Amino acid sequence: MANTNLKLLGAWFSPFALRVKIALNIKSLEYENIEETLYPKSQLLVQSNPVHKKIPVLLHGDKPICESTIIIEYIDEVWNSGPSLLPSDAYDRAMARFWAAYIDDKCILAMRKSVLVEDKEARKAYLEEIEDSLVTIEGELQKCCREGKGYFGGEEIGLVDITFGSLLGFMGMIETMNGRKMIVEEKHPCLVKWADRFASDPNVKGLIPEPEKLVSLMWLGKELEKKE
Amino acid sequence: MANTNLKLLGAWFSPFALRVKIALNIKSLEYENIEETLYPKSQLLVQSNPVHKKIPVLLHGDKPICESTIIIEYIDEVWNSGPSLLPSDAYDRAMARFWAAYIDDKCILAMRKSVLVEDKEARKAYLEEIEDSLVTIEGELQKCCREGKGYFGGEEIGLVDITFGSLLGFMGMIETMNGRKMIVEEKHPCLVKWADRFASDPNVKGLIPEPEKLVSLMWLGKELEKKE
Repeated sequence: MANTNLKLLGAWFSPFALRVKIALNIKSLEYENIEETLYPKSQLLVQSNPVHKKIPVLLHGDKPICESTIIIEYIDEVWNSGPSLLPSDAYDRAMARFWAAYIDDKCILAMRKSVLVEDKEARKAYLEEIEDSLVTIEGELQKCCREGKGYFGGEEIGLVDITFGSLLGFMGMIETMNGRKMIVEEKHPCLVKWADRFASDPNVKGLIPEPEKLVSLMWLGKELEKKE
Repeated sequence: MANTNLKLLGAWFSPFALRVKIALNIKSLEYENIEETLYPKSQLLVQSNPVHKKIPVLLHGDKPICESTIIIEYIDEVWNSGPSLLPSDAYDRAMARFWAAYIDDKCILAMRKSVLVEDKEARKAYLEEIEDSLVTIEGELQKCCREGKGYFGGEEIGLVDITFGSLLGFMGMIETMNGRKMIVEEKHPCLVKWADRFASDPNVKGLIPEPEKLVSLMWLGKELEKKE
């Protein structure tokens, strides 16, 4: 691992912090992991991300970088000799950014709402939204598979894989909470294989939080969301 | 203007299409402007952006690029010999992406909700949210001014300027609708000067829609939002 001056303000349950950890692992970058408790937020977090006061923050020396996708792009641009997290071709890069934004805007929003909402009918509607987005993502992954790629990013894990893969723990939590699998062989044959491949990659293995642990944190999460 | 194979699917009132127009102007790139009516959506739009079916879409030859910020980054990367839309330093680039995302996530959301909401108290709360974000943006711009920069991006218009500047028409519309100025000298001395400078730049001049025209389109906009 390269010796760097990197600190990550994160939390074990945060999919956004997980993204940064995976990116740092892929680039073989050493970092100090600082586990934030969030209540109260540390002074370092508030100073480093005064606008949003949210994790993750990557501190490169004394420079804070915030927002998981922006941090991934920063890592890829600064340590550009290692494996690439974004494609080298400008159009492919635009497409990777498009799918990462899709996952952030559509998937995460529906996942978050399905967890927070109290009304059963509304929850059902959000679960359907998640399922719709899974079908869209499966369609995109099938295109990649037809081109002989194992990941959205090609042969190796890239931005889109990290963005979606970071949600596997929360997806498992939602499955546990609602008593049904959401990523299933019949509807998402490529995603099922992709998820196994992703989770067992040496740069990811052991980092995705177990759904049961997330379920027990869910109530805390609900309080966090209400207060933010 | 360089001869390119570029088509823009946009609409005169769209701040997101406006962003792309300004970026193309700065890079002196010729393009065919295709004005979408949105009801019904053209087959070209639906084919080019099957996931969101939204403008703007930039067609580079037969390749569609969607989402305004992604399009701006694409333009900057492909035509990299002209003026830069993003800073050359990786950290400065991360900061530009951070502020562009802030404007998209905080500012636009509150602006949209303030226009769509029927309840007066709720509207007041959204207007306060807009004002809070204006104070944050003014604070960031003051830092740039202290460093002798006229724009967020430095001496020239960059990503953050385009992202926020594209909203000036809609900001004017909200001011007209609510009978009060929001960007004001006492609270936002830098933003007031910046807005004048931005709007009179040769690459922007005449492109920001007049608030009165947007007000008369507001009712159509409300219907559009409800249906999407």
